[in-house]
Amino acid sequence: MPAELYLIPVTLGDSPVSHVIPGFPLEIINKLEHFVVEDLRSARRYLRKAGYKALFDDTEFYLLNEHSKDEELGEIIEVLAGGNSMGILSEAGVPAVADPGAELVALAHKRGIRVIPLVGPSSILMALMGSGMNGQSFCFHGYLPVKNPQRQNRIRQIERVALESSQTQIFMETPYRNNSLLEDILGCCREDTLLCVAADISLKTEFIKTKAVREWKKDIPNLHKRPAVFLLNRM
Amino acid sequence: MPAELYLIPVTLGDSPVSHVIPGFPLEIINKLEHFVVEDLRSARRYLRKAGYKALFDDTEFYLLNEHSKDEELGEIIEVLAGGNSMGILSEAGVPAVADPGAELVALAHKRGIRVIPLVGPSSILMALMGSGMNGQSFCFHGYLPVKNPQRQNRIRQIERVALESSQTQIFMETPYRNNSLLEDILGCCREDTLLCVAADISLKTEFIKTKAVREWKKDIPNLHKRPAVFLLNRM
Repeated sequence: MPAELYLIPVTLGDSPVSHVIPGFPLEIINKLEHFVVEDLRSARRYLRKAGYKALFDDTEFYLLNEHSKDEELGEIIEVLAGGNSMGILSEAGVPAVADPGAELVALAHKRGIRVIPLVGPSSILMALMGSGMNGQSFCFHGYLPVKNPQRQNRIRQIERVALESSQTQIFMETPYRNNSLLEDILGCCREDTLLCVAADISLKTEFIKTKAVREWKKDIPNLHKRPAVFLLNRM
Repeated sequence: MPAELYLIPVTLGDSPVSHVIPGFPLEIINKLEHFVVEDLRSARRYLRKAGYKALFDDTEFYLLNEHSKDEELGEIIEVLAGGNSMGILSEAGVPAVADPGAELVALAHKRGIRVIPLVGPSSILMALMGSGMNGQSFCFHGYLPVKNPQRQNRIRQIERVALESSQTQIFMETPYRNNSLLEDILGCCREDTLLCVAADISLKTEFIKTKAVREWKKDIPNLHKRPAVFLLNRM
């Protein structure tokens, strides 16, 4: 059998595995001895929670994160090309979408190695589903600039696209900056622009609400350290 | 308990339920007596396949598709507002993303009804994961115009954004038009633009490949009647 690269989903925070991960990814995990991970400790913890049975002494882990160099990526692809199937997983959600992994997948395509995406939770997709906003046309912008006036300018620019085209605009922020991002959104956007805030997706504390900026200003939620996705569109 | 609106995932074609649907959505299905569906017959077939146990005589189904009128939507929301939890499902994949459902979700937000997205397969998300293209910034355009020169112009416009910004551009077509869309992509785009074709996602015949337009021209796959997603980016 030629080697395959599996894109393995991970729970978003502390939700039970069966809430968000189908049986097939759990079967696949138990067939693999090679994993590409963002962080060794949390990857091992997740694999155990997901029912991985093998001894970790017999398992090879390869680190891949924002500090990884091209040569490390090159070493990983050689292991794959040498006939060893691999799973890649990030800290939460699905790899390669707003998370590391895409470069390894791209290299796999170049080497003719089959890539197999598996189903699991994506905060971006679930936020979009739950927002009630246009799901026929949408755009994800990743993280906005941290500083102002750059961030405020970017929010205004993104809002303009939403108002002109009705295309849903999606972005996020590292959780400890969510409150300041929300403050900028409410400060910059028009009173009748629709904002969806989707926080703690798939967790017990899940919070998904869509209303006009004017309405949000009356009751501002505390999003500090809660993973969140923000979506804008017109009424 | 106040009523809740669940966004219920459906398999993409004939794949086994356990491949792509976690346990939690299957539990939820069995607690519901009200379903909003695109097509009655296929919704019933899927619910049985997913382990729905109740008699259909005791279950209420509400049709919601492109022919639905505002008053029908209004009737559905009154059932929810009356305290009846509901599940909404489309023909395949997750509702409200490139499928009906968003309008009902938007109405639920207006009425203060909690909306709960559940995890399942999305061909758009899985295509993006499997493409190896930029997953930090991407845009989904839905269906392109059917006729030319409109379609070719739109492809050129979409390619321009990809080349200028490195933002992954995603679009799709009804399966029986896939071959003619692929022909237009290969005819319009630059030789070194990257194209990912992702067809039959999560099925046995799954086909996900990313290569330059120049390479695709040497070996054009037959996509007739195979559900597919197309992605463009620069090298």
